[in-house]
Amino acid sequence: MSQKIKRIGVTGAAGQIAYSLLFRLAGGDLLGLDQPVALHLLEVPEAEGSLKGTVMELEDCAFPLLADVKMGTDPGVVFRDVDYLFLVGAKPRGPGMERKDLLGENGKIFAAQGAAIGRVCPQALVLVVGNPCNTNCLIAQKAAKGMDPYRFFAMTRLDQNRAVSMLAHKAGVPLRDISHVTIWGNHSSTQVPDALHAKIAKKPAIEVIGDRKWCEETFMTDIQKRGATVIAARGKSSAASAAHAALQAMQSLIFPTPKGEWFSMALLSDKSPYPVGKGLVFSFPCTNKGEGKLEIVPGLEWDAHLKAKIAMTERELMEEKELIKDLL
Amino acid sequence: MSQKIKRIGVTGAAGQIAYSLLFRLAGGDLLGLDQPVALHLLEVPEAEGSLKGTVMELEDCAFPLLADVKMGTDPGVVFRDVDYLFLVGAKPRGPGMERKDLLGENGKIFAAQGAAIGRVCPQALVLVVGNPCNTNCLIAQKAAKGMDPYRFFAMTRLDQNRAVSMLAHKAGVPLRDISHVTIWGNHSSTQVPDALHAKIAKKPAIEVIGDRKWCEETFMTDIQKRGATVIAARGKSSAASAAHAALQAMQSLIFPTPKGEWFSMALLSDKSPYPVGKGLVFSFPCTNKGEGKLEIVPGLEWDAHLKAKIAMTERELMEEKELIKDLL
Repeated sequence: MSQKIKRIGVTGAAGQIAYSLLFRLAGGDLLGLDQPVALHLLEVPEAEGSLKGTVMELEDCAFPLLADVKMGTDPGVVFRDVDYLFLVGAKPRGPGMERKDLLGENGKIFAAQGAAIGRVCPQALVLVVGNPCNTNCLIAQKAAKGMDPYRFFAMTRLDQNRAVSMLAHKAGVPLRDISHVTIWGNHSSTQVPDALHAKIAKKPAIEVIGDRKWCEETFMTDIQKRGATVIAARGKSSAASAAHAALQAMQSLIFPTPKGEWFSMALLSDKSPYPVGKGLVFSFPCTNKGEGKLEIVPGLEWDAHLKAKIAMTERELMEEKELIKDLL
Repeated sequence: MSQKIKRIGVTGAAGQIAYSLLFRLAGGDLLGLDQPVALHLLEVPEAEGSLKGTVMELEDCAFPLLADVKMGTDPGVVFRDVDYLFLVGAKPRGPGMERKDLLGENGKIFAAQGAAIGRVCPQALVLVVGNPCNTNCLIAQKAAKGMDPYRFFAMTRLDQNRAVSMLAHKAGVPLRDISHVTIWGNHSSTQVPDALHAKIAKKPAIEVIGDRKWCEETFMTDIQKRGATVIAARGKSSAASAAHAALQAMQSLIFPTPKGEWFSMALLSDKSPYPVGKGLVFSFPCTNKGEGKLEIVPGLEWDAHLKAKIAMTERELMEEKELIKDLL
């Protein structure tokens, strides 16, 4: 317990995803039970009162590892010296709002936050959770002047977890038998959950399941639409499962990947070994060789089906980029 | 992982406290990372749709330890074979509702659940979280015919955690320096947070803080009113901090207490070494000698101040019992 405090930033800190995330961060779920942490919590002025209530609850848990809590509305103050940053807060799509408006509104938020990150915590690892997360990530990355763009990532881990669960359920095997699941491209309804390279008990998933059509159609579209399915049932969007995925995704950025495994993460496409346009934040299968040092797993062959689907998600990301080009 | 599955029941499973609790139970936070678990989730019919959404999110986390999820509206079905049971769901006080009405409405729920527990899971350890939790616990206990009443407990752990946090903050010491905090009596605004026997770095808290008036007045009333303070800030009642306390409280019931420590738990007063009326579910300082085998820590001397405050909370519990006597 004599270790240096690690500082963890969270935006949208009074929101539902953060409410499922903060107590786990404070309890040591991210960095382990020997690592004291401080939380740096950002909110918009309208939600500051509610955030104070959440901070009271954090105090009321008497977490022995929680050394400090800072809160505020200015990213240039709140993000100072942060080591790990979850950008969770984003504007949801309002009634009558076009996609361009949504991208523009969020773009302003993420441009301001990116600029602040470049100034006050350029050493941070940044995980963008707030949607549209790939393009929000791109905007923040570009706004962080002088900072390594490969410190910025966007989350496709919830999609990966959903795919693991669905494959295990379909095959009737324990979850731990599922491996090598990849989500390609955009965290949106064009995402490409890849059953071709996924493994079930070390064998190709398609072979074990024995139903290529299910793998290429039902599996893919059910994962793409899962978020909407959860909203329809809950009446609210996924929060606890998103928080869980965010925690795991950040762990994947911090800690080396066990040999022979990989995980999905969206990052700048420029150095990708795959035929994907440059300048996009695109989800690939990745491994981690040391804090934040991700490598894209090379050599996965795309069949005609995957190639066509990946082209669609790439096109969507290019369109999103075109819509916010003034912010880059 | 070849261990027998442990079955954990939660009522009010679509509610806010459960939403903060279920994902931690499924992740192994209660019983550790080697113990597969099943969740048995109870809700009222109106909340079944929302509960389905929560269960989808549990699936979407791909928790390797979560072996099974059951859900339903009949406690006699859902509670079957449960090992550990969190009774979280309770009717909140509605507009114009008298205390007697509140006790009566909840009494019916807890009488039905207690009867089911006695029939289908008499081996379970039962922690009542839903308020008014002491009297709800008493009702459930009496309804569980033939079952050991000392398998039923009501939660004062959130109050204890709040008291620990407040003492650490006041003394300017780390949380781990605070020990031997007791909450006596009812989990309500008459509860008695005890600074007289609390220790700060092994010394009497009152001595370290050097302000008896603060310990007897500010400390006590701030803890008593903390729930209302959080509601005023958040606009909602405590959920994540209550879930955290519930998890810790159940762990205290399951695992032996480290030597020299104690925790607060409300249980049947009949065998208490303190001058408290029999037949109440009353919070005492406790230690655990083995799963569910609690002993009340004897020999703490009450000064005149504590004696007077404890008499008040005892009187309130007697009044609550009188109001629901038809249910016993």
